[in-house]
This record gives sequence, C-alpha cells and structure tokens, in this order.
Amino acid sequence: MIQATNASVWHGSLFGDEALAPLFSEIAFLDRFARFERALTAALRDHGLVEAAMAERALAAIAALEPDIAAIRAGLCEDGVQVPAFVRQLKAAAGDAAVAIHVGATSQDLVDTATVLALKEAEPVLRARLAAVLEALDGLAARFGRRPLMGRTRMQAALPVTVGARLAGWSEPLRRHLHRLDPVAAEAGILQFGGPVGQGPPALGGKGPRVAESLAAELGLGVPDRPWHTDRSALLGYAHWLTLVTGTLGKMGQDVALMAQQGIDEIALTGGGTSSAMAHKQNPVLAEKLVAIARFNAAQIGGLQQAMVHEQERSGSAWMLEWMILPQMVIATGRALADAHAMLGSVTRLGEAD
Amino acid sequence: MIQATNASVWHGSLFGDEALAPLFSEIAFLDRFARFERALTAALRDHGLVEAAMAERALAAIAALEPDIAAIRAGLCEDGVQVPAFVRQLKAAAGDAAVAIHVGATSQDLVDTATVLALKEAEPVLRARLAAVLEALDGLAARFGRRPLMGRTRMQAALPVTVGARLAGWSEPLRRHLHRLDPVAAEAGILQFGGPVGQGPPALGGKGPRVAESLAAELGLGVPDRPWHTDRSALLGYAHWLTLVTGTLGKMGQDVALMAQQGIDEIALTGGGTSSAMAHKQNPVLAEKLVAIARFNAAQIGGLQQAMVHEQERSGSAWMLEWMILPQMVIATGRALADAHAMLGSVTRLGEAD
Amino acid sequence: MIQATNASVWHGSLFGDEALAPLFSEIAFLDRFARFERALTAALRDHGLVEAAMAERALAAIAALEPDIAAIRAGLCEDGVQVPAFVRQLKAAAGDAAVAIHVGATSQDLVDTATVLALKEAEPVLRARLAAVLEALDGLAARFGRRPLMGRTRMQAALPVTVGARLAGWSEPLRRHLHRLDPVAAEAGILQFGGPVGQGPPALGGKGPRVAESLAAELGLGVPDRPWHTDRSALLGYAHWLTLVTGTLGKMGQDVALMAQQGIDEIALTGGGTSSAMAHKQNPVLAEKLVAIARFNAAQIGGLQQAMVHEQERSGSAWMLEWMILPQMVIATGRALADAHAMLGSVTRLGEAD
Amino acid sequence: MIQATNASVWHGSLFGDEALAPLFSEIAFLDRFARFERALTAALRDHGLVEAAMAERALAAIAALEPDIAAIRAGLCEDGVQVPAFVRQLKAAAGDAAVAIHVGATSQDLVDTATVLALKEAEPVLRARLAAVLEALDGLAARFGRRPLMGRTRMQAALPVTVGARLAGWSEPLRRHLHRLDPVAAEAGILQFGGPVGQGPPALGGKGPRVAESLAAELGLGVPDRPWHTDRSALLGYAHWLTLVTGTLGKMGQDVALMAQQGIDEIALTGGGTSSAMAHKQNPVLAEKLVAIARFNAAQIGGLQQAMVHEQERSGSAWMLEWMILPQMVIATGRALADAHAMLGSVTRLGEAD
Repeated sequence: MIQATNASVWHGSLFGDEALAPLFSEIAFLDRFARFERALTAALRDHGLVEAAMAERALAAIAALEPDIAAIRAGLCEDGVQVPAFVRQLKAAAGDAAVAIHVGATSQDLVDTATVLALKEAEPVLRARLAAVLEALDGLAARFGRRPLMGRTRMQAALPVTVGARLAGWSEPLRRHLHRLDPVAAEAGILQFGGPVGQGPPALGGKGPRVAESLAAELGLGVPDRPWHTDRSALLGYAHWLTLVTGTLGKMGQDVALMAQQGIDEIALTGGGTSSAMAHKQNPVLAEKLVAIARFNAAQIGGLQQAMVHEQERSGSAWMLEWMILPQMVIATGRALADAHAMLGSVTRLGEAD
Repeated sequence: MIQATNASVWHGSLFGDEALAPLFSEIAFLDRFARFERALTAALRDHGLVEAAMAERALAAIAALEPDIAAIRAGLCEDGVQVPAFVRQLKAAAGDAAVAIHVGATSQDLVDTATVLALKEAEPVLRARLAAVLEALDGLAARFGRRPLMGRTRMQAALPVTVGARLAGWSEPLRRHLHRLDPVAAEAGILQFGGPVGQGPPALGGKGPRVAESLAAELGLGVPDRPWHTDRSALLGYAHWLTLVTGTLGKMGQDVALMAQQGIDEIALTGGGTSSAMAHKQNPVLAEKLVAIARFNAAQIGGLQQAMVHEQERSGSAWMLEWMILPQMVIATGRALADAHAMLGSVTRLGEAD
Repeated sequence: MIQATNASVWHGSLFGDEALAPLFSEIAFLDRFARFERALTAALRDHGLVEAAMAERALAAIAALEPDIAAIRAGLCEDGVQVPAFVRQLKAAAGDAAVAIHVGATSQDLVDTATVLALKEAEPVLRARLAAVLEALDGLAARFGRRPLMGRTRMQAALPVTVGARLAGWSEPLRRHLHRLDPVAAEAGILQFGGPVGQGPPALGGKGPRVAESLAAELGLGVPDRPWHTDRSALLGYAHWLTLVTGTLGKMGQDVALMAQQGIDEIALTGGGTSSAMAHKQNPVLAEKLVAIARFNAAQIGGLQQAMVHEQERSGSAWMLEWMILPQMVIATGRALADAHAMLGSVTRLGEAD
Repeated sequence: MIQATNASVWHGSLFGDEALAPLFSEIAFLDRFARFERALTAALRDHGLVEAAMAERALAAIAALEPDIAAIRAGLCEDGVQVPAFVRQLKAAAGDAAVAIHVGATSQDLVDTATVLALKEAEPVLRARLAAVLEALDGLAARFGRRPLMGRTRMQAALPVTVGARLAGWSEPLRRHLHRLDPVAAEAGILQFGGPVGQGPPALGGKGPRVAESLAAELGLGVPDRPWHTDRSALLGYAHWLTLVTGTLGKMGQDVALMAQQGIDEIALTGGGTSSAMAHKQNPVLAEKLVAIARFNAAQIGGLQQAMVHEQERSGSAWMLEWMILPQMVIATGRALADAHAMLGSVTRLGEAD
C-alpha cells in the first residue's frame, strides 16, 4: 500500500532529497518508536517503577522485535496512528513482560518525539548545506565582488552597485538564518511525554518528571516544562525558519534567472538545462527551482498554521494536517539548499561580460 | 534516487491512494510520453510530413524503447524536465529515423499532455467514488432520515430538524459537484501542442492544426484553439473542483466528529480508532482525516494559484510549482472520497440513541 | 468605531476601488437588509400569511426606518451579526405591525442575500472593465501585433515570435474568463432563505417555497432548490473566477515588467512611477501592482477555501472568515482590472525600438 | 478616494481595532515620514553634511508642512509610493533649503521605517492585552482550576482532567508567546536607511554610518548592520509571532465553543450573541471570532511569505504585497486579544454544572 503514496511521483528525483527524505520514512519512525520504548522501559526500571527482571525481558523483546509492517500499515489506517499496532506487537512479543512496556505513554508521545528526533537529525544536514552555500557565496564575492553591476530597483536600472553588494544581499540573510537556527532547534528539540490526556505521565506515582528526565537524556532531547500535545508553536517555529531559508534562496534564484537573461547577461553558468526543441538554449533550471520551492514552502506554512487550532487535549485532524505538510517542507528546504550550492558552483562569471 | 523522495513517508498508507497515485508515477509519465510520440509520428506520416518508411521505423523504435530510467532521472535534474533525455534516448534508438520523431513538439507539450491524461484517467475513479458516497448517503437517509435531530447553528442547539435534513446538507453539494465535473473535465482534457514557444507547431508548414487534430484524436483529448503553455486556468478549474469536493467532505467529517462526542451521541460508528493508552476509546479517525484533507487541499489551491504568474512564453518556476502541488491534490481527494465512503459504511445509527 | 477599521490604511488609494468598495459598505448592507425585509413582508402579504393592513404598516415602517447605526454596530459586536439589532429597530418602529416583519427569516438569510446582491452589483463593473482591457489589447494588437518579438521560455531567449503572439497570451485567457463569468454569476446569484436552521422557511405553512419565489423575483435573484447556509460552493466559484482574472493579469504585469527592463526594452510606457532619489527612473508601477494583486488573491482563495468546513447547520467562525476575505478579493480584482486598462493605455511601443 | 477603500466594510466594527488600525493610517504614515525627514536633516547638520542655517530652515519647513493629501494620494497611485509626492511638497516648502532635505534617503527608507515604527507602537498594546488575557486565565484558574473536567482527545472523552489543566493548555503557550516577543520585536525594530539601491546611504561621504546612528537614535530604533530593503525576515518574524498568538487564541476559542455545546455544558458565559429568529439562543460569538481570526492570519502568513521573493535591489510587487497583508494581521491580532479578554471576562462557570 505504501506504493500507493506519491512516493514514485514522476518528478521525485527533482524535489526529493536522499539525506532528508529517509528521516521521515516508515522505517525511521518505527525505529524511533522502538528507541522511545527502550528508553522508557529503562527509565521505569531505574526509577523502580517496574521490576528489573521484567524490564530486562521487555528490553530484550523490544530490541528483538521485527515489526509486522503490513499489520502496522493496517493499524495506521484503522487507528489513524501507527502506535497502537506497534505497541500491540511489542507487548505480544514481550509476553508477561508487557507490563514493563509503554507505561504512562500514549501514541502522541511516540509520534511527536519521533518527529522531533527527525527534525533534530535534519538539523546538521541543513546547517552544513547552509554553511556550504555561504562558503560558495564568499568564494564568488572574493572572485567577482569588486566588479561593477547595475543596481536594479522595481525591475528598472537604478544606479551602479558592485557584484559584492548583490552577493551580500543573498548571503547576509542566510548568515542570519544560520544563527536563527540555534534557538529554533533548541525549542523544537523537546521530548513529548504527556500520557493519555497530555497532563504529564499518569500511572507513575510522583515519578513522572524524573522518568521524563531520564527519557529525554537517553534520547538526547530537552525536558518539557509540560507536555506540548496541543501547542505546536515550536514545530511552527522550525517550519517558519525553513520558510525563511527557502524564501531567501528563492530571492537568489529569481535574481540569477533575471541576471541570466539575454540582453542583461550579468551572469554565466556552466551546464544548465537543455531543451528538447532548441539546441541553443541553456535554462537556469536550478534558479527556477529555488523560486518554485520558495513559493511551495510559503503556501505550506499557511496550511501548517491552520494546524494550531487543536481541539481540547488533542486534535486528530490538526495533527494529521501537520503530518501531511511538515516533512515536505523539511525535504524541500534541504533540496533547495543543495540546489543553491550546485547553482553557485556552476557560476563562471558575475557582472558584465568583459 | 527516487527512494530519496517522500515516497516512503511514514504515514504513506494513510494518505496515499492505490488507484490514483500510480497515475502520477514516473512510469506512467514515460508511458504517456511514448504514446504522445507514437501518435505524433503517425500524424506526421498521415499528413505527409515525414516519409512513411521513416515513420514506420520510428514507430517501431518508440514501441521497442525500454527507457534508461537512471539517465532520465539525471536528465530531469539537469534539464528540469524529463523530456530532453527521453527524446535523446528515442532518437538514438531510431537512428536515422530520428527525423520522424518529436518534430514540432517541445518538452512542455509532452509533460502538459501527460498531466492532462493523468487527470482524465483520474476522472472515472473520482466520479465512481463520489457516486458511491452519494449512494451511501441516500442509503442512510432511507434508514435514518425521518429520525429527529437537534439542529445546531453556531455550535448551539437551535431547533429540531431531521437526520434527513443533516444528510441532505452533506449530499446535495456533493451531487452538485458531480454535475460540476462535466465542464471542468472537458476544459481540462485538451491536448497541449504548442511547439518551442507555444505558438502552435512550427516546422509543419501549414499542417500544424491538422497534425494537432490527429494527435488529439489519437490521445482522446480535445483540440486546443491555441496552446495553453502559459494559461493554466483549466488545470486550476480542475484543482478548484477537487477543493470543493474535499471541502464538502471536510464539512461532513467535522459534523460526524461533533455528532460522535460523548454527551451529544447523535451517531454510532463501528470500528474506529483504538488508543495505545485508553482501551475504551473509539476515535472517529476517518472523520478527522476528512477535515485534515479539506484543510490540506485548501492550502494547496492557494499555492497552485501562485503558479498562474507565468513569465513570457513559459515559466520554469511556475510550472515546477504546479508539479509539486497538483498530483497531491488529486491523490488526497481520491483518498478522502474512499475514506468518506468507508466512514458512511460504518454508521450503525444516526440520530439520538433509542 | 468604524474608524477603527483598516479603512484609512495608508495605501488605501492604491488598492481601493471607488465603484466596488461601496458595494460592501455598512450602508449598502443595511439598505439590502431593508430591501429583503420589504420584499419578504410583501410576499407574506401576497401569499395571505399576514394581514394586508399589517403588511402595509410594516412596509411603511421599513421604508421610513433610519437605522441607529451606533446601536447596529454594538449589536454586530454583541451578536456577531448586524441583523438582530437591525430587526429589533424595525420591529420597534413597526409597533404591532412587527408581526408582519422577518417572519420565517433568520440573520443568515439577510447577510448571505446581501452578499449575493453585492456580487451581482459588482458583476457589470467587472464585466465592463474586463471588456475594456480586451479592447485595449485588441487595439495594441492592431497597432503592434506584426512586429517581431523574441519569444522567451524559462526566462531565456528561445525563438522569435510576434508581439501579437505575446498579446494573445494575455488576451485569450481573459476572453475565456469573460465567458466563464456567465455560469459562475448565475450560480452565485441565488437567494438565501433558509430560516433558523436552514431547512427552508418554517412558520409559513406549506407556502415557504412560493414566498421564496416571490422574494427572489423581487430581489432579482434565482430561487434556491434548497438553502445554502452551509454550502459555500457558489461563492467559492465566484472567488475562484476572481483569482483566475487576477492571475492572468498578474502574468501580464510580470511580462510588462520584464519587457520594460533596460537591456530588454521591448515596451515603452508613458508616465510611470517617479523615484524620490533617482530622477531618471520610470517604474512600471501598475505592472507591479498586477503581480501583487495576483499573489494577494491567490493567498486569499486558500483562506476562503478553509471556510467550507462549516459545522452542522451554520458555522459562525467559517462564516466570519468568509466575510473577512471575500469583499477584499472583489475589490482587489476590480482595481487590478482598472489598473490593467490604465497600464495598457500608457503603452507607446511594443516590440523592439526602431 | 480613501472612501473607495474597504474602510467602511459592513463588518468593520467586528474586526477593526480602535487602538491599532490608526497606527497604519495615512495620517500616521505621513507623520512618521515627517519625523524621519526631521531626524535626517538634523543628523546631516550634526555631522556637518549640510549647513546649519539651511538645516534650520529645512527643519522649520518640515515642521510647518501641512501635506496636500489629495496630491499625495495621486502621487501614491502614480509612483506606487507616497514618498516622492511627499518629498516634492517638502522641498517646495523649503525653497533653497531643500538641499538639506531627504539627502541620501529613498522612498523605501521612509516607508519601511514608518512600518517598523508602527509595529513598535503596536507592541505595547499587544503586550498589555496579552498580559491581560493571561491575568484573566490565572483568575479563572484560581476560581475553577480544581474542578474536574473530562479530558477529550480526538474529540472523544478520554480521561478526567481538571479545569486547571485545560486552562494551562491555553495560558502556557500564551505565556511563552509573551517571552518570544522580546527578540522578535528587537529584530523588527531596526531603522531602514539604505539609499537609492539599498547599499547604505550614498552622497554622505564616509559619514553614512554615523548619520544612520543618529537617525536611529532619534527615532528610537536599532541601527542596521546593513540595509534590509530586500530582506524581509524580521517583518516575517513579527508576522509569524502574530500568527502564533492568534493560533493559540483560536485553539482557546474552539475549545470554548465545544465546551458551550448543549449536552457538553462545561462552561457558562454571560451575554453572548442573540439570534434574530431564536430567542433562546446565546451564541459564543467571541469564541467563534477567535477561530476565524486564527484561520485568517494563517492564510495571510502564507501570502506574506510569498513576498520574500524580492527581485534585485527592490521588488515593487513583493513590497506592495506586504503592504496589503501585514497591517491586517496586526489589527486582527490585536482585536483577537481584546476579544479573548472579553470572552474570558464573561465566564461564570468552568467545569460541569453543579
């Protein structure tokens, strides 16, 4: 049934990302669910909430589990989330050690934590690619920065500037985005552990907070002041950051496409797209893609913001809407950064031809 | 590299569609490209624009082609479209019969026509599912329509109505959407054959229009008055229709979720989602999904409308933005219709409990 | 308090419209409410549902009413709609003839009907402006159509076309939009008369349908098959049409801005924007505005589509969201058409300079 | 012509804001332009860039100016911005002291700085209203916090929680938003002073930076590292914050509307909307409005993000799109905060009826 997704969409290789898409795959999420359950059972054991022997057997069962994917997909469609089917499989495998599994947790704790872990794993990729784009821009500034360029406002020639000034208009916002990522990632990197109704883990006596601390430490996440089942602000902050990045890259792409026009000729690029009908053409494909992704993410953030209206202690519909949109934004942003780097690497001239 | 798309996204089986997603797959598009080229070569032959013998050899080469997928994916990334790589492979396979291939056509003719064919193939699926939803609603009206129901406005009890009245509020708009599909599908089912700059096929002497007629007839599409390379109105009309359908289904889903609340109890559903933490729960998962998809499509149409701003004779960025959004809308709509039908099939009571 | 709206926003004269904005004004809506109530009382009388004498006194009271605007604004904030306060004033003025006023109607009947009347009054303005734009385009085609122009795809020089071909890419979609308006306006021009819970007027014995017919005839609207309190499809169809128009105008504006670049110089415009810093500049302000309005409407349609998710027999929140968005789209579209006409009127050359 | 804006839209008193809308009025912007020019002339004098005597006469002329509003509106439509007409009037009034006016500045410096000053003036209003909402929530928690409430997930009864837990789900995100405002406002509170092509003030010898410092100090704004003519990130950060606030308020409004349902009855509110047809109804109008504004702002941020794609040294179209959207978001957010406070003030019971 997974084949029935838009997985194999005809332009998949154009907008996909080999490093980032797998972070949101079925396998990656199931693996994070298992990590969550292992860490939870260990924490329950360490805080004396389950017997050590039961915990060991439960941990062994979790480690050994080879999930029945078909059953999990069916469960996802039936329950609207993978976790109940996954936990049923875990508990069946654990036998009576099932008492040491999933204690105090709920589906949302696993899915939200897996999402946060995916964002955390995406972060170094995005950071490295952004740094590489900045390095490429600095390199172009060193090579071409002093050359004159006609400054253009409202798409009209205004006054001469330098290539360096145009490049700074691309690089300075990106440099700021790199700094903006620190608080954004910190805020998004928080464990979810709210229990059935998001009030903090029940069934754990007074030990819920300490279990949460152990769980967060094991997973490398921050400890929540309180669960964020219905407060998606941190995820929206991350998505907003993605949109800032693609917005700035879209501005750069639009500028490159404008500079590459015959009659303007302010840039030379190697490679570039060929035409099936016109042998002489060399299309600024990567520049166009940066504009497309900027506009795509802009539309997506508008949809994601709708998901803030979360009914009561958990909204299934708002949550599902988030699932449909957020992974696409991360993947598109990663691809835009890779494309921007490739585009800048293909520049052989900036400024007017000699 | 296709694996690097969001193909295998963890919730793929929740939002994908086995019947519709394949219509937008890489294989389906390459197959339609081949159909286009076969029909074009035959039309060129029939109108005396290429030698019959050359045409036959070209047709044989097209029929025999097993595309080098890796090369086409690389070409897609390089050229921003699959067609140049595809045509290079075709022409190489055809040898000197290459002179009878792709004459007068351009990449956009193949991609837009393949898109239109996908929408045309989606139409009977959407139509049948919509009819099935209507049938299910009529069945519920027959079973429960006369029962009293509290009419609610602004989420407050207003005056008593009947279950039939609530059901009519769901079915009547859907019935109208079914009729609205006729003109929408007719307008969207038009061949694209504009040549390099969308001015109608050059290089065909005065015979371009007749070649277009033969091509359209062979592909089962309407004949364009003029190419629509930069006029996406017909595709937007189709997307608008999709959004109307999911909007009405979202209204139905929201109502079902409200009716299923404890304390309201105006509907009983079999099955429904289980919880990993609360054995007593039965979540109206399909109803929630209808709301999520309605809001998803609403956000997407806003993005797709941005793609109307098409520069000059073809915008690469606006075109790519359309590719990113339109297939998802079709697939999500198909899934919403299937889910709505399943949800209605699970209804065991409408109106207050006896 | 009306002063506290964004009425006097600093750029009001740039995006407002003298002909269309008044159609959505407080006065216009109150006037339409009075027209609705007059027509309803007359219909009640004609169908023997209220005494003739009472009806005459009620009609006189309605005709004489000078609404207490402050009280209506306060009522709008209190009730979320103007109608209860308006009807209270009417009934107080009518004394015991109040029994012949608002019988069978509800707030939504008045507000939705007033909205539909506003759209109907906007239609000839939009139609005339669109026709004027087409006439201007035809005029430019006659003057400059045969001149050569470089065809550009993906923002790269492709093959020579003619100015006429570029102009046809602007005018043909607009011509189709003009035809598309007929069914769209017919579908949107339907009376709302659903009564308290949108089930068709209660309290009118079996005579509701005939009262609706008389009411619709008097107001020049179509008769509803059934009330559309929760089915906003027809309004969305109208809004979609507005977005198609501004999308095509945005494409034209983008092209003009690209043609006006120094180094491209494919168009000459008189007038145009001056700069406070650069005396030599002449900015294609109207062209830019067409792009801005296209993107504005594209974003708005995404928001308006969210308003399809209408709970039960009436959603206050979805309805209010529609109020916030739809008038702006009509006004922006009208202004874009006027600006497009002015822009085309300022063209002194199309195609390369001699 | 200002009358032709949507100023007097029929529902203006429902969504407008007496404190915030005036910050974006024509008068407010012209006043800020004058403040900018006064501060600039003074800075030019202090840094020896214009003669003291000329500066004094220029300052007197600026102080004395009573702008010809009609001419400025005409200029706005002609130039796409008010500044050229405004500066022409200033310079005419100053006679030969015009040499001490607008030196080094461009239209965008005045408009962007006036926008930033408007956001800065809005900040204390938003901050105070948000604090008042938090205080009201704390008050309700003190009164009703210990009462039991059925926790609901996916719109199904889950497990009992407390009223305090539900209230914390509303107040904690708002408390975080209050802290998030500090860096957001600081980043948005930066002077714009880029000169004609946004490269930092020309025509000021090496003294541009010091002039910028004096100008920023006088206007109470931060000093830019570099002009942000084409980098709208800080404004988008402010808009994102607005959307977070309205998103959380929308969640609260949705919850209140759900709690107020007959059959649920978890809240009692005084006042509330009356119906023109049903005397018994009491509609949760303010709660509905919070949902409407949340969805409105969510749609708007998607449009505003499109405005990041700024061509070259200044995009007229992206800039205009920002003007159309940003003021509405500020006003809607302010109104939502005021409405939320009023709604909370009308609560007479939380939790089940005794």
